[in-house]
Amino acid sequence: MNALLRGFLYAAALLLFAGPARCQELQFASLGDVKLQSGQTLKDCRIGYRTFGKLNERKSNAILFPTWFTGTSGDLAGQIGPGKVVDSSRFYVIAVDALGNGVSSSPSNSKQQPGRDFPRFTIGDMVETEYRLVSEKLGLKHLNTVIGISMGGMQTFEWMVAHPDFLDRAVPIVGSPRQTAQDLLLWKAQLRPLQRSQSPEEAKRAMQAIAGIHALHLWTPQYHVERTKPESVDELLDKQESSVLAHDPNDWASQLVAMIDQDIYRRFEGTPSRAASAVKAKVLIVVSLTDHMVNPVPALQFGSLLGARIVELTGNAGHLAPGSESPKVHSAVEEFLTR
Amino acid sequence: MNALLRGFLYAAALLLFAGPARCQELQFASLGDVKLQSGQTLKDCRIGYRTFGKLNERKSNAILFPTWFTGTSGDLAGQIGPGKVVDSSRFYVIAVDALGNGVSSSPSNSKQQPGRDFPRFTIGDMVETEYRLVSEKLGLKHLNTVIGISMGGMQTFEWMVAHPDFLDRAVPIVGSPRQTAQDLLLWKAQLRPLQRSQSPEEAKRAMQAIAGIHALHLWTPQYHVERTKPESVDELLDKQESSVLAHDPNDWASQLVAMIDQDIYRRFEGTPSRAASAVKAKVLIVVSLTDHMVNPVPALQFGSLLGARIVELTGNAGHLAPGSESPKVHSAVEEFLTR
Repeated sequence: MNALLRGFLYAAALLLFAGPARCQELQFASLGDVKLQSGQTLKDCRIGYRTFGKLNERKSNAILFPTWFTGTSGDLAGQIGPGKVVDSSRFYVIAVDALGNGVSSSPSNSKQQPGRDFPRFTIGDMVETEYRLVSEKLGLKHLNTVIGISMGGMQTFEWMVAHPDFLDRAVPIVGSPRQTAQDLLLWKAQLRPLQRSQSPEEAKRAMQAIAGIHALHLWTPQYHVERTKPESVDELLDKQESSVLAHDPNDWASQLVAMIDQDIYRRFEGTPSRAASAVKAKVLIVVSLTDHMVNPVPALQFGSLLGARIVELTGNAGHLAPGSESPKVHSAVEEFLTR
Repeated sequence: MNALLRGFLYAAALLLFAGPARCQELQFASLGDVKLQSGQTLKDCRIGYRTFGKLNERKSNAILFPTWFTGTSGDLAGQIGPGKVVDSSRFYVIAVDALGNGVSSSPSNSKQQPGRDFPRFTIGDMVETEYRLVSEKLGLKHLNTVIGISMGGMQTFEWMVAHPDFLDRAVPIVGSPRQTAQDLLLWKAQLRPLQRSQSPEEAKRAMQAIAGIHALHLWTPQYHVERTKPESVDELLDKQESSVLAHDPNDWASQLVAMIDQDIYRRFEGTPSRAASAVKAKVLIVVSLTDHMVNPVPALQFGSLLGARIVELTGNAGHLAPGSESPKVHSAVEEFLTR
């Protein structure tokens, strides 16, 4: 190894492991046995998380950032930093792995309740474990903001009503307070093939079929008509299959079940206005009007009841609009967080 | 059996088998061995069809009505009659079963080339067998109109350029002259699970997964948000599964392959304007702007090149808009056919 290369590697190691960057490493909080909303007990619950930036002296700059469907806190790292969704130079950002994502306790990693023996959990259970992480393990009495994308946005809606006094601000991005028939159709069209599979080989086939469904709903028809070359459709499907097959089928199914169950109005006897009255946080809602994966209508309706600030993404990238219209999202979030 | 019941059955038999209704019975034309566009030979080709109404003396009132994807000439009967898509009191309507639909020669019914041994066929092959049916077997030298819905509309577009002198009018309804990336994604997301299946049980699983995909694309997200109750989503999926499982998986796959291949511009070196110049028929194009199953953009673009009359369905029923907006469709078709 020559000196130049050695010097470069040393500098790289410094960047990776020294200073504030160290905190971005995956850590775990052990919560012991957790009673779930279903009444079942999740044994030896572990929650993965990564922190970015520094907690200030007043402990007033903590932002909780839960993961999207099947995503990890490692995936969220790309959304955190100057010029990203959340600026970790000003905020102490806690990226947290949602239950069932393969990092926190999940069917794929549970020793005592593996695979289909893993107990059924809800979006509410994700939020409760996150609440215990920040309050018991990280010693925080308050969050500046909860922000989340997609299923992270669903958790953000749940946070608003589950712990209304614990957060000043909530920013659900392409999330939803309640699943519409369209959402349920999409999740159940994915769940049924998984539930029917009786072997790892069948589960693999199910995941491949699910990849096709996912590819059809992440974007919009208009996007593919305008942007995707007909001759590259097989490549797109191949990529989606690789991406979906990287996940454990039981983990995938467990988070589908959590989303299918989601309805923040249930604790208010199904009355959205009562749920809205319970919310104390200031709320910024970001929706994509062409979203074919998480329908934007419930978020818009709840946003209207809340008098929330609403940002509508209007391009044709559907559920992926927060990426394709990121400058609009970033500036809206930044402006909202400095209010 | 009591007299009343006997009388009722006799009356029912009269209605079913006597008078003009007799012509609506399924008939078959045997075309012998047919050379397909792929170069393969389809052995002992049989084409199913039903006729409605009477051919006039000048033989100028014949309308050809090919089937939609996996549909049969029996299914088309519901679209034919006074106040329906085509009025058989004025026209002689030939409802024809497209290749691969389980009635005409198909993987499920071929004795010499059953299942996956069935040769690959195209929308163009469907049209050639239909051309031979009407010209050789029914002795017609001309068609007043070719009209078709969905995959029937794809065949209608093919008819315009394959036999431009043979028809006065063409009415493709929610059809397409060429598949976009979105269409290909939808068909390939269905085809891949079928191609991977190695047993009848796996093929059944694939068809069940396909039912979910179909349910997600026949309508629109807006339709389900507004019209479908969240608690009835499982019932909707159950019905779709029953409906899809009524079809043979190899038949289903064979027509998917035909649609995936479709591109009426191919014979014009990919130039839509040259294809449009070849069309001699008067054309009425009906599209649904919210169609999530057959993208409307190619039909609109070709219609513009043709100077065709275009009817845009604007509701939220997507691919099923011709049903939910049937008065608009029926009056437009009726007016067009009397021009």
